[in-house]
Amino acid sequence: MSPLFSDREITEQFSDTALFASFARFEQALIKGLAQAKMIGSADAAALIDQIAAFRPDHAAIAEATIRDGVPAPDYVRQLRAHVTGPGSDLVHHGATSQDLVDTATIEALGKTSVILAKRLDEVLARLANLVARDGTNRLQAITRMQPALAFEASDRLAAWQQPLEDLRGRMTKLREQTRILQFGGAVGDLQALGDNAAIIAETLARDLDLRWPGQSWHSARGPMIAHANFLSELTGALGKIGQDVALMALRGDDDIRLSGGGSSSAMPHKHNPVTAERLVTLARFNATLICGMHQAQIHEMERSGAAWMLEWMILPQMCQTAGASLTAASALVGSIHRIGASKGDER
Amino acid sequence: MSPLFSDREITEQFSDTALFASFARFEQALIKGLAQAKMIGSADAAALIDQIAAFRPDHAAIAEATIRDGVPAPDYVRQLRAHVTGPGSDLVHHGATSQDLVDTATIEALGKTSVILAKRLDEVLARLANLVARDGTNRLQAITRMQPALAFEASDRLAAWQQPLEDLRGRMTKLREQTRILQFGGAVGDLQALGDNAAIIAETLARDLDLRWPGQSWHSARGPMIAHANFLSELTGALGKIGQDVALMALRGDDDIRLSGGGSSSAMPHKHNPVTAERLVTLARFNATLICGMHQAQIHEMERSGAAWMLEWMILPQMCQTAGASLTAASALVGSIHRIGASKGDER
Amino acid sequence: MSPLFSDREITEQFSDTALFASFARFEQALIKGLAQAKMIGSADAAALIDQIAAFRPDHAAIAEATIRDGVPAPDYVRQLRAHVTGPGSDLVHHGATSQDLVDTATIEALGKTSVILAKRLDEVLARLANLVARDGTNRLQAITRMQPALAFEASDRLAAWQQPLEDLRGRMTKLREQTRILQFGGAVGDLQALGDNAAIIAETLARDLDLRWPGQSWHSARGPMIAHANFLSELTGALGKIGQDVALMALRGDDDIRLSGGGSSSAMPHKHNPVTAERLVTLARFNATLICGMHQAQIHEMERSGAAWMLEWMILPQMCQTAGASLTAASALVGSIHRIGASKGDER
Amino acid sequence: MSPLFSDREITEQFSDTALFASFARFEQALIKGLAQAKMIGSADAAALIDQIAAFRPDHAAIAEATIRDGVPAPDYVRQLRAHVTGPGSDLVHHGATSQDLVDTATIEALGKTSVILAKRLDEVLARLANLVARDGTNRLQAITRMQPALAFEASDRLAAWQQPLEDLRGRMTKLREQTRILQFGGAVGDLQALGDNAAIIAETLARDLDLRWPGQSWHSARGPMIAHANFLSELTGALGKIGQDVALMALRGDDDIRLSGGGSSSAMPHKHNPVTAERLVTLARFNATLICGMHQAQIHEMERSGAAWMLEWMILPQMCQTAGASLTAASALVGSIHRIGASKGDER
Repeated sequence: MSPLFSDREITEQFSDTALFASFARFEQALIKGLAQAKMIGSADAAALIDQIAAFRPDHAAIAEATIRDGVPAPDYVRQLRAHVTGPGSDLVHHGATSQDLVDTATIEALGKTSVILAKRLDEVLARLANLVARDGTNRLQAITRMQPALAFEASDRLAAWQQPLEDLRGRMTKLREQTRILQFGGAVGDLQALGDNAAIIAETLARDLDLRWPGQSWHSARGPMIAHANFLSELTGALGKIGQDVALMALRGDDDIRLSGGGSSSAMPHKHNPVTAERLVTLARFNATLICGMHQAQIHEMERSGAAWMLEWMILPQMCQTAGASLTAASALVGSIHRIGASKGDER
Repeated sequence: MSPLFSDREITEQFSDTALFASFARFEQALIKGLAQAKMIGSADAAALIDQIAAFRPDHAAIAEATIRDGVPAPDYVRQLRAHVTGPGSDLVHHGATSQDLVDTATIEALGKTSVILAKRLDEVLARLANLVARDGTNRLQAITRMQPALAFEASDRLAAWQQPLEDLRGRMTKLREQTRILQFGGAVGDLQALGDNAAIIAETLARDLDLRWPGQSWHSARGPMIAHANFLSELTGALGKIGQDVALMALRGDDDIRLSGGGSSSAMPHKHNPVTAERLVTLARFNATLICGMHQAQIHEMERSGAAWMLEWMILPQMCQTAGASLTAASALVGSIHRIGASKGDER
Repeated sequence: MSPLFSDREITEQFSDTALFASFARFEQALIKGLAQAKMIGSADAAALIDQIAAFRPDHAAIAEATIRDGVPAPDYVRQLRAHVTGPGSDLVHHGATSQDLVDTATIEALGKTSVILAKRLDEVLARLANLVARDGTNRLQAITRMQPALAFEASDRLAAWQQPLEDLRGRMTKLREQTRILQFGGAVGDLQALGDNAAIIAETLARDLDLRWPGQSWHSARGPMIAHANFLSELTGALGKIGQDVALMALRGDDDIRLSGGGSSSAMPHKHNPVTAERLVTLARFNATLICGMHQAQIHEMERSGAAWMLEWMILPQMCQTAGASLTAASALVGSIHRIGASKGDER
Repeated sequence: MSPLFSDREITEQFSDTALFASFARFEQALIKGLAQAKMIGSADAAALIDQIAAFRPDHAAIAEATIRDGVPAPDYVRQLRAHVTGPGSDLVHHGATSQDLVDTATIEALGKTSVILAKRLDEVLARLANLVARDGTNRLQAITRMQPALAFEASDRLAAWQQPLEDLRGRMTKLREQTRILQFGGAVGDLQALGDNAAIIAETLARDLDLRWPGQSWHSARGPMIAHANFLSELTGALGKIGQDVALMALRGDDDIRLSGGGSSSAMPHKHNPVTAERLVTLARFNATLICGMHQAQIHEMERSGAAWMLEWMILPQMCQTAGASLTAASALVGSIHRIGASKGDER
């Protein structure tokens, strides 16, 4: 059943390939930082950066080592160190730790995911705007607490769909500012191995990765990850509400909504089930379930908790994928609305 | 066991008394709005506002009716209408609906709760700052992934406690701006009963309640409630991390932390258990559990879902209370730290 | 809004009064066990048991001490020890620990709650059976995936409501057997303070409390608590499904269901909202949220985790109360069904 | 990071290949049932069964159709119907519905998963028994509420690990009996298309699939799925507790536990992190998060809810996989314990 819930474009942002590409960018940027701090000569740095660019990690070996190490970074770094030569090659990964690589890669993946989601959200909003333009003045029965209330216009219900999505779209800029930050703390978070050069290296590293250096590491302070998770679940929640409404309107019948397509049944050929609407509800409840795990994962032990950290790895990519699938489904669903509400000219 | 988890000051913000006081303020402000729109004369409005001020709802009758109505507002309004007399008295609650009263009251309760939490958070931060000043340069063993890593200073671990709390403190202003909004939509959310006067009435109502009028109702768009819930769980999560650390440090022993007080045991008189530290973990995991229900409650059916809405009523006050209890406990815990880390002058 | 969610009869099972009464029964039974093992003379034991019966703990002092100790038992035991005199009085609580008292009290409270729930569930099942007898052959439109499917009879939908409830009712006996067990392990769970007398004392203690001695303590193995939590959430889930169906039937209209009563609206006097049906959904989703915390609380550290244990205290009583409120609401809802389905004789 | 959380053997039970193989077995067994009821001649039935055996569904086409239909069964059945010829071929899938196929396939997958899990659990228990035999009398410091309590033996802590696992192992038989049931209800759950033949067909179908026919369909009564989910989370919870203990023991040091292997760090070569222990905690918290979604999914609308049903599809396979990964990790972890506790003969 994976086609119902998966999202190839977003899954790729969390693939091994994407992960190791992020690792490479980090290690290259770190070399630049070390050069900026005069710890490596600029020609040597350039040579190292080229070597890192040419490095092809052995994915299978890293997969195996990840079981042993509990994180893919150590074996990646081991392989990379074996790959590079020349002056400064002993400074590869210098001052950094596994979490710096992994968290920064996650921040990059979340950033790319956000760009994809924003584009899809714009598409959903455009389709909703089209619907308002076409059917907005149609009559519709407002429903409160599962009972017919008063009549209003289709645009009124559509506004209740648009408004939270527009609000979420507006918050994406703020979320981006808040969360596009470098993770960089070294072994225990205080960059002690870099001494007085820590700040200049961190600044250079961040700038090179188009991230912000927040002034300190945040190994055990998971605010940026939680912020994304909250946003993703609010997004699928707002789309799930649309799905719930469409399913209820489909149940009430043609005066409420007419959908093209619709799921066929193996037993009842006459049926056209609002399965995409149902799926939006499913995806919303799935993310609303996973959010609990992300909040549980705030409780890090001491300077780094593998237990809490790995829980994020299990959850965040799925929340992104669920949001991606939900936007695609919402776009299809809104596009399949043949008519919402009843035209005022219709005879009843 | 309620003393461990409850918080009288915050519970009061969600009491019947507080609820009906909010209802009264709303109905008074609505009269002002109707007067501003010339739907009631100003002298009549003043008389009505005085009558509302003098109104004492029958709590027991409302409690009984709430079972029947699924919300306390209808019987409150029925009683209030029976109480008021004179010109304009037929316009009490005019254009409003139960959800306008209840959501606005919740916004007011959350606002007052936030003020209490902010004050307590300041106290926790002040105590942490004192700790840094007193013990910051003490030696401490950094721990990553449940293994001793490198040595650093007590101020390093304390910074990891302070930073998310300072970040959360900083976000409270933004949260306040975002969420101090009026709920006002009338029966089906479009203020149709007020016609062209809707905007002026809404603006007046909001101003009088010291809230912002967001330009439309948000009956089924629960963003402000979710924003509070997210914040509350992030707050208890950050405090839970401190609790987890202190419990682990207490387990590791005197070189890590010396606590005064500590829980006694019924079987082992020699023990001094870090029970307040444990409690911070409990409270964090409780809010991290409840957050799931708040996200599930995003899926409103149509213009108003009693099922989703009531779920918020079960959860939000508890999340506030849990945050309150957590801050009080954190303050006590930090205050009970007799020494963190080992003084550099100590002989080992 | 507490009348919507609370349940006085069940709340009382988890009150301080009930808790301390359980503590007293435990301490009395322990004296009997010690007498059985010849560690106390039988006359002395009888005198001590009488003294325990007469003991009135100072609730306020225990409440205060609970904050310090993280559990109410130590101060209760301290007060009790100060209260008793005579030979053997130094053996009060001998060999036991706080967790033995608290867990056994919880088992007792869950047992009493189960009796209450069973009685209410029988009532719901009786009302459903009446409905089947009265309306079972009425025509009803089956709905799958939010679309009309085929016609069937009211008894078909009612069977889908009855079957999981009957299954749950049947499982209550098994649950009782599985979970009515004594907690008794002493300081670190191995009853080491009692030496060779441990088994005879444990057996006597269990028999006196009408519990089963499972052969070892289960301080960190929370199976019985989880079993109750799972059951409670499955019960509210099955009732929530009924609520969801009734709400949808009320939305579809009179051919599906006719309810007497129904919630009134502050803005639309014509409405009769299926608020009790909605409430069943709310209560189901609340327990389905809390279940997560109970499963998180399985992860005890070492021989006893205050953090995990206290999380149960926050959750289990609420899950019981929610189940109680749900059964009461379900009983009322089923009783308010004036007609389900359409009589076959009706003209359409 | 998928190697940390995935489990190939279990994932395969939920693959498309396994799903369609289950569908084929169901459709073959249904033909046998129809033959038993004399609705198809026995030679024709045999021919149809052979044709179904030879049927190779077009996976890609089904994947695409699943998006449209919200379930893979309709297109599978469409393709199968196009494939079969001869007398009785019009009766393929007769009386059944998509949910009958999908739920029965899930029951089969859960059954096969249980066999795998049981075998692995036996292995974990065997390794724990070996540990008891080898190190059981070693001295160990009991820890309660994060403080050293009394000394006891390694076998005491190990017993607290063994007991819940043995209990869970014992419950697997009961779980199997309770949940190995046929789903068979047809379009709206009442098998109306089969008339008086329904029972004999259902019995034959169940017997052929080595399942039990519970006497009615259970389209909206999700007890068997919830029972599995509860079990899976209790299993990972019990293993997570072991992980938590081992991580804490590793933190406390060599007197508590000596592990061979252990994760390496990219920044601190001296470290050997108990990453597998941490991972057990992660996997436990993940299933304890997902359990919430399974309980939410109890609330089916009417005779079949796509929204609730699909949520199970997202969650149950992951819970199985997580349990599988957790058992594998636990086996490795227990196997890597070089010594637990301190030998009594050791000099301190």
